[in-house]
Amino acid sequence: MVGIITLTTDFGTRDGYVAAMKGVMLGLAPGVTLVDVTHEVAPQDVWEGAFVLAQVAGFFPPGTVHVAVVDPGVGTARAGIVIETDKAMFVGPDNGVLTLAAPAGRAFRIEDVSLFLAPVSATFHGRDVFAPIAARLAQGLPVPQVGPPHKPKRLVWRKDPAVVAVDRFGNLILSFGEVPPQAQAIDVDGLGRAPLRQTYSDVAPGELVAYVGSSGLLEVAVRNGSAVSRMEGDPRGRKVFVVI
Amino acid sequence: MVGIITLTTDFGTRDGYVAAMKGVMLGLAPGVTLVDVTHEVAPQDVWEGAFVLAQVAGFFPPGTVHVAVVDPGVGTARAGIVIETDKAMFVGPDNGVLTLAAPAGRAFRIEDVSLFLAPVSATFHGRDVFAPIAARLAQGLPVPQVGPPHKPKRLVWRKDPAVVAVDRFGNLILSFGEVPPQAQAIDVDGLGRAPLRQTYSDVAPGELVAYVGSSGLLEVAVRNGSAVSRMEGDPRGRKVFVVI
Amino acid sequence: MVGIITLTTDFGTRDGYVAAMKGVMLGLAPGVTLVDVTHEVAPQDVWEGAFVLAQVAGFFPPGTVHVAVVDPGVGTARAGIVIETDKAMFVGPDNGVLTLAAPAGRAFRIEDVSLFLAPVSATFHGRDVFAPIAARLAQGLPVPQVGPPHKPKRLVWRKDPAVVAVDRFGNLILSFGEVPPQAQAIDVDGLGRAPLRQTYSDVAPGELVAYVGSSGLLEVAVRNGSAVSRMEGDPRGRKVFVVI
Repeated sequence: MVGIITLTTDFGTRDGYVAAMKGVMLGLAPGVTLVDVTHEVAPQDVWEGAFVLAQVAGFFPPGTVHVAVVDPGVGTARAGIVIETDKAMFVGPDNGVLTLAAPAGRAFRIEDVSLFLAPVSATFHGRDVFAPIAARLAQGLPVPQVGPPHKPKRLVWRKDPAVVAVDRFGNLILSFGEVPPQAQAIDVDGLGRAPLRQTYSDVAPGELVAYVGSSGLLEVAVRNGSAVSRMEGDPRGRKVFVVI
Repeated sequence: MVGIITLTTDFGTRDGYVAAMKGVMLGLAPGVTLVDVTHEVAPQDVWEGAFVLAQVAGFFPPGTVHVAVVDPGVGTARAGIVIETDKAMFVGPDNGVLTLAAPAGRAFRIEDVSLFLAPVSATFHGRDVFAPIAARLAQGLPVPQVGPPHKPKRLVWRKDPAVVAVDRFGNLILSFGEVPPQAQAIDVDGLGRAPLRQTYSDVAPGELVAYVGSSGLLEVAVRNGSAVSRMEGDPRGRKVFVVI
Repeated sequence: MVGIITLTTDFGTRDGYVAAMKGVMLGLAPGVTLVDVTHEVAPQDVWEGAFVLAQVAGFFPPGTVHVAVVDPGVGTARAGIVIETDKAMFVGPDNGVLTLAAPAGRAFRIEDVSLFLAPVSATFHGRDVFAPIAARLAQGLPVPQVGPPHKPKRLVWRKDPAVVAVDRFGNLILSFGEVPPQAQAIDVDGLGRAPLRQTYSDVAPGELVAYVGSSGLLEVAVRNGSAVSRMEGDPRGRKVFVVI
């Protein structure tokens, strides 16, 4: 069995950290297909890593192993875990980074040190623990062999209407995807009112527009422009109002 | 048949957009080899995407599928197309982004919705239309099955002597690759005179030099330095004179 | 035989240079696995490229071919070389970029032009010389067939205690990995005193800490923060003192 492993980290691509993980995985799982989700998660921003992984995991074929390493607690007693769902396996630290993508599923605490790289460093479990575990899972290791069942730390999705992320185009991604049928527009604190449309080409270039984005969440954008560049400060967490 | 698919986009690598495309392609074409050309095309800069793709497509083996998604018109009535040449297939929006790499070849309009991901979003045809089409072509789908013949929008290569691109080293790439035999130097508006040589090591460090670059086009560089950092503003479009 | 080729360059990922190399390699070695180490080496910084490659090469399986192209001397008479060790092959210019990763091993000067892409450009040996050589080696070409034995230029590892690199998290990597048993702390010129601990979670958030990093070298970090952002100027080369 030769599988697919995806990688989501805050390691950047300037240093060799990601490549070291890939070397380890290719040694243990020859022929495995490695796919970068992103390595540009803001350093130690667990929520951002969890969000990006949740956006993409569903588009990979059944059996894919997703590794996410955004790990401010490396070296502490925080557990490493694997979550197994009907479709995929998720490997990473037990800090919530896996749980937006895998809100359900059975979780196991990684404990069998014979599966690790030896010796295990205190600061790079991505390479020494999560990479070898992921490679072995991609090779067919049954998930329960990594260790005992575990109740994972779960991230809570923001329930009030707010901006949760900003993409590379400067589009704002909101915490919800459905609005009442009579809704006319979205008001973002500090940006202004964006009429609800099917897509951004339904407004003139340079105008604000709100629509259900490709992830199923509402987005607020400027057609052929950047919404975030019209705001001051970090838009994440900014309140949002639905205009009826 | 297991092929190669290259990806050229303006999506960046911070968000999960590229990974979502790859997940879709690996699901439909298991074992396909995915190669990133670049995801750092300036947002919505169709010409820049077309230029980078044209620089590299010829170096891939026959049968490669090249996907380019720089798509300011997504959600409008602009067509999606496939261009088939003797050597390769090109998939993307019909806005010219494919046509510097594939100036000839037969073009087809993508119309068979049964080949798409369902449902198709209004804003992410890269994932929902172009990725599945590319995967199916890499798997052997005959190009004419995507839809009827189509006359594509073509980008016109700049015919006057000018700067057309700047690379990561700050070298200027010009719109032409040949000069009269008696030519002595290249004069770039706002930069100065660069003597024509074989390569940059033919001048002293820090000096301007012009030479035929690895793409077959003339380049103007500073040896062990950056030409663009000696100019004010965007050098693209700047006029160029051949000094006899 | 289908192998693994890694790539370490200063080409960036915005232009198509890396993809052109990959196209050439996939044409000559179908099915080869390509892994990016980094393409964000500072332009022409041979030492930085050598350092990153040395950090990761040991984690790849036996037989891996590592290509490193940081090549300020391209177009001059500098040789191209292959270094063969017990575990791996290293391909690149003879400027030292391979020699931190492969301090021993037999070196050969690349001379057999029939192995190159034709014609060879004056400015892009990554694509025209090193990529085809690496592909052929991954396909099983015996190393001595590239050309005669050669005595390579070697980089000298800094012997005095100093900062040699900075990673994406702002951690400082030092030139040494061992300290006397009675050592208490590390003093970095311009930063201050960092107590020696097992890992960064042994100090409070925001505090300086020194520990043996995942590469076996000492590192100085700020827990949940950035050490480099507390210093003025480039920390590389800054003197370091071991406090007994």
